[in-house]
Amino acid sequence: MKIITTIAEARDCVRASRRDGKRIGLVPTMGALHAGHGALIERAVAECDFVVVSLFVNPTQFAPTEDLARYPRTFEQDKAYCEKLGADVIFAPAAGEMYPQEQITWVTVEKLTDKLCGASRPGHFRGVTTVCAKLFNITTPDVAYFGQKDAQQAVVIRRMIADLNLPLEIRVCPIVREPDGLAMSSRNRYLSPDERQRAVCLHHALEHSRQRAAEGCRDAATLISEMQAIIENARGRIDYINIVDTETLESIARIGQPCLVALAVHIGSTRLIDNCILDLK
Amino acid sequence: MKIITTIAEARDCVRASRRDGKRIGLVPTMGALHAGHGALIERAVAECDFVVVSLFVNPTQFAPTEDLARYPRTFEQDKAYCEKLGADVIFAPAAGEMYPQEQITWVTVEKLTDKLCGASRPGHFRGVTTVCAKLFNITTPDVAYFGQKDAQQAVVIRRMIADLNLPLEIRVCPIVREPDGLAMSSRNRYLSPDERQRAVCLHHALEHSRQRAAEGCRDAATLISEMQAIIENARGRIDYINIVDTETLESIARIGQPCLVALAVHIGSTRLIDNCILDLK
Repeated sequence: MKIITTIAEARDCVRASRRDGKRIGLVPTMGALHAGHGALIERAVAECDFVVVSLFVNPTQFAPTEDLARYPRTFEQDKAYCEKLGADVIFAPAAGEMYPQEQITWVTVEKLTDKLCGASRPGHFRGVTTVCAKLFNITTPDVAYFGQKDAQQAVVIRRMIADLNLPLEIRVCPIVREPDGLAMSSRNRYLSPDERQRAVCLHHALEHSRQRAAEGCRDAATLISEMQAIIENARGRIDYINIVDTETLESIARIGQPCLVALAVHIGSTRLIDNCILDLK
Repeated sequence: MKIITTIAEARDCVRASRRDGKRIGLVPTMGALHAGHGALIERAVAECDFVVVSLFVNPTQFAPTEDLARYPRTFEQDKAYCEKLGADVIFAPAAGEMYPQEQITWVTVEKLTDKLCGASRPGHFRGVTTVCAKLFNITTPDVAYFGQKDAQQAVVIRRMIADLNLPLEIRVCPIVREPDGLAMSSRNRYLSPDERQRAVCLHHALEHSRQRAAEGCRDAATLISEMQAIIENARGRIDYINIVDTETLESIARIGQPCLVALAVHIGSTRLIDNCILDLK
């Protein structure tokens, strides 16, 4: 496995693979890899001939008040993990390689980005779409792999690919969970032991909504308020809980079509997100 | 020469060329081709192995008040001209092929687009950068050719390519002029015979500034006011006349470094632009 830090090297090595007719897969990550990322890399290795894992903590998707500085960096472990899973290349550029001058060009996706996480993290998705466009242009993948845990991100990137005619497909892979149900996240390591126990409330709230819907409850407001009680009972501070259309991300009032139940909750000072899809067919 | 109207066909034919190791050139146009476009196509044919000319009157770069509906469409002549010059493919999609659903993803370049033409045509450059990103992603050129007449557009696209790491180079080709000096433009055909005669005032004003600078005048305000007099004398209605840095497009007060003298003028109801570079070295 090769470790690459410059854009020029990345272009060279994908050019060579492309010339050999290889199918290129990209797994864009911010490092601090866990089994959720692992599932993306495994799927990429299974489906592609040449797999690039990018490790880049992208400054433009963090607000000044957010956790850019303390975001976990675990390069040596990430390297060993990628190697074990069969990735071909790690692309780990420094911030100055990705942003050598002031970034004045932005890719923005309207409408889908002003709700859910976009409402509480202004500018976040502009940073995500812009860095993904850059990574796609540098590594020219046939397929890029994203996790369903970042459900809104997946919807936004999918739309960006369609609207800009980017020549790649996207695969969105299921959420990977800890044994107690907590969704894997690089930010879970911020949690104290007590917070770690309470953090499972996000999963419990989602499971409750799934069960209540299966029992026949169709009213979104009822489900949301019951989820709210579960979160508050675990002393979680709710950023949002919403039930939305899986494509437009617009709130829905009655559970009918497949919908996304999504929530963001602060456990102590750590913001966690989780979601599930309700499909009653 | 092939005529292609769908994105799928365009992808197929550039994929085949790329597999054969060909160098792909793209000349993005809105059709109504003239000798200025011709120079771009000739250069592309000279430098590349496979040349795509796109003909697409892009609705997203026109404001509702502008001339989208009456913009000249001369497809049969354009076709014959491209064929004569040796283009390999014309890509002429309908608006519904390029924008099959509401476009909510936009590529924007800040700062460079709020001046000169950007100030009088809000949204124009967002439409230009977005459609160019789409055309680049569809035709995956190694080189794209633009005309220096749209000087601001060239600066904006160059910056977009750098900021988004788009895998292509840009070539900017000199302005082609009519025998009396009027810059070639698809919009020249809107001019009445009287307006056509008066339209040469843009070129005269630029030549005047070039001569005055060569004689030693270094004061931008003086040059601008003398150019203004020349335009007004020909009953042109000035949108802007400015002298700016060739990269940042910021106004400059004294002619020192290479600078861009740019103007936009209404002759009757037709808006014309022209420019020259002053480099006193």
